[in-house]
Amino acid sequence: MALAHGANSLFSGRVVALAGGVGGAKLAHGLAQLLPPEQLSIIVNTGDDFEHLGLLICPDVDTVLYNLAGVNHPQQGWGRADESFHVLDEARRLGHDAWFLLGDKDIALHLMRRQWLDAGLSLTEITSRLAQRLGVWHPVLPMSDEPVRTVIHTPAGDLPFQEYFVQQRCRPRMMGMTLRGLEKARPTPAVMSALQQADLIVLCPSNPYVSIGPILALPGVREAVAARPAVAVSPIIGGRALKGPAAKMMAEMEAEVSALGVARHYAGLVRGFVLDASDAPLADDIAGLEIIPLVTDTIMRDVRERRRLAAEILAFAQDQLLREVV
Amino acid sequence: MALAHGANSLFSGRVVALAGGVGGAKLAHGLAQLLPPEQLSIIVNTGDDFEHLGLLICPDVDTVLYNLAGVNHPQQGWGRADESFHVLDEARRLGHDAWFLLGDKDIALHLMRRQWLDAGLSLTEITSRLAQRLGVWHPVLPMSDEPVRTVIHTPAGDLPFQEYFVQQRCRPRMMGMTLRGLEKARPTPAVMSALQQADLIVLCPSNPYVSIGPILALPGVREAVAARPAVAVSPIIGGRALKGPAAKMMAEMEAEVSALGVARHYAGLVRGFVLDASDAPLADDIAGLEIIPLVTDTIMRDVRERRRLAAEILAFAQDQLLREVV
Repeated sequence: MALAHGANSLFSGRVVALAGGVGGAKLAHGLAQLLPPEQLSIIVNTGDDFEHLGLLICPDVDTVLYNLAGVNHPQQGWGRADESFHVLDEARRLGHDAWFLLGDKDIALHLMRRQWLDAGLSLTEITSRLAQRLGVWHPVLPMSDEPVRTVIHTPAGDLPFQEYFVQQRCRPRMMGMTLRGLEKARPTPAVMSALQQADLIVLCPSNPYVSIGPILALPGVREAVAARPAVAVSPIIGGRALKGPAAKMMAEMEAEVSALGVARHYAGLVRGFVLDASDAPLADDIAGLEIIPLVTDTIMRDVRERRRLAAEILAFAQDQLLREVV
Repeated sequence: MALAHGANSLFSGRVVALAGGVGGAKLAHGLAQLLPPEQLSIIVNTGDDFEHLGLLICPDVDTVLYNLAGVNHPQQGWGRADESFHVLDEARRLGHDAWFLLGDKDIALHLMRRQWLDAGLSLTEITSRLAQRLGVWHPVLPMSDEPVRTVIHTPAGDLPFQEYFVQQRCRPRMMGMTLRGLEKARPTPAVMSALQQADLIVLCPSNPYVSIGPILALPGVREAVAARPAVAVSPIIGGRALKGPAAKMMAEMEAEVSALGVARHYAGLVRGFVLDASDAPLADDIAGLEIIPLVTDTIMRDVRERRRLAAEILAFAQDQLLREVV
């Protein structure tokens, strides 16, 4: 955080990151190290949310919170560092099918959320309280206060996202997806206001279908993103996803499994696209989509690399994307 | 449990124990060691229940479950043995005012309850499931499936029971009490059926106002108890309560703080009354209330003494109380 203010010269405007999953949380953390809270908001997917063990689990929101707070598990991509599992061990003894792992610290946060939900607070208000108590000062904004639940269509039937993702380990073939509850859901006022005031919108290297897709599907969001300078970061490197089912889903949805396929997915929505150096040969084709490519090392192996990638994206946006905007 | 069947000669009929708090759980455990599940049901106070940290806490039900399962904390009178507090420690860091102590194992049980409540199960069904999973085979019956909440009137205003009991450590003077929700609450069918089929009803050494009182206050329960042979065990020994505010409350409610005062409280309801050997001089006055006294050692220092007291009560009932019943 010491760098935050000194780094303002990198980018002087307001940035909004759209995030979901581990890659999104990493880049959001990189941006948060460079930009002060008044210059960066993070809009997070809630399509992965589900009720489990009497709790509302918000995997993407919590992954962003934990990463920004620096209390995330350093390797596994979910949950807390220095975690124990005493509650889950006992719940198992009481007959709980513990296919979704919740550590004791994680459960503490979920109990706070549960009690505030019961008291009538919105997910946005609750997330803001949790963020503050974790020492996170950047706005972390759930995409909606109404429940939206991603359901994956498979040959074996419809699977709620976490059952597909965790319980079935993404093995069933994806034939399509539905966002249950979308018809009643709206983006929050905080989300719309952040988008409308954004000088740059960053689509983090998150799954285009199940992480970024639900955010863009909310009424008015796609239009709001398209109206501002936006840059997407490819979650596909060398034809593979670093983590999660993005590559498998793209293949099953008959998209080209490459950074180019991702760029095509976002064509018309973004002005810039960040792809990994190992995919450099695709840059010309991406430019052919009227998207300005940035070729760089996009793998964030440690906290320093998160910051480095964030800085490159901000510099690229400042130099290449905002020139056209008055 | 090995004794359960061999001990049937002690008492051949059906027994119902009314319990709340630690003394009640101890005697219920003593009875459960002597009687098989088809001969003993335990009806438990739910007036102490409250919502906390997003969970429904049922202190009396859980104390009975934990004691019958043999997993209770051996000294402190609440919670589990071999307990850790990782969730609560983290919840505190997140701003939770942890005035009510919930261990990790305890929280696991509460999460199971919470999830089953959300799924629409009744407290009776949930308690039965939890009992089975803890290896408790005697029916443990919450007095009602509708919420009843004991509120203590004090000079500083009305206090929900747990705030009075735990947060304020029973310091405020009790001026009276209300059972919030009583007008909408009914005893469960399982409770009424157990009472109506009982050959003996045992009012455990629990607080007459806040533990036994709420059970008796439910419509039809007092009459059902009065219609069967019943025996009460004094929670007051030598003018003091072993645990909890019973003595202080009796003084504040202008009752005589003694086993005799407790017997007067239950006059017209019970045929037998068990008082401690140290209170033997009061036996004649109790007999004067047309209640047959049993003078014995009523302090249950260990598991063996729980069983011993239970056996004496059953023998006393068989010999002294049931003679009049055909």
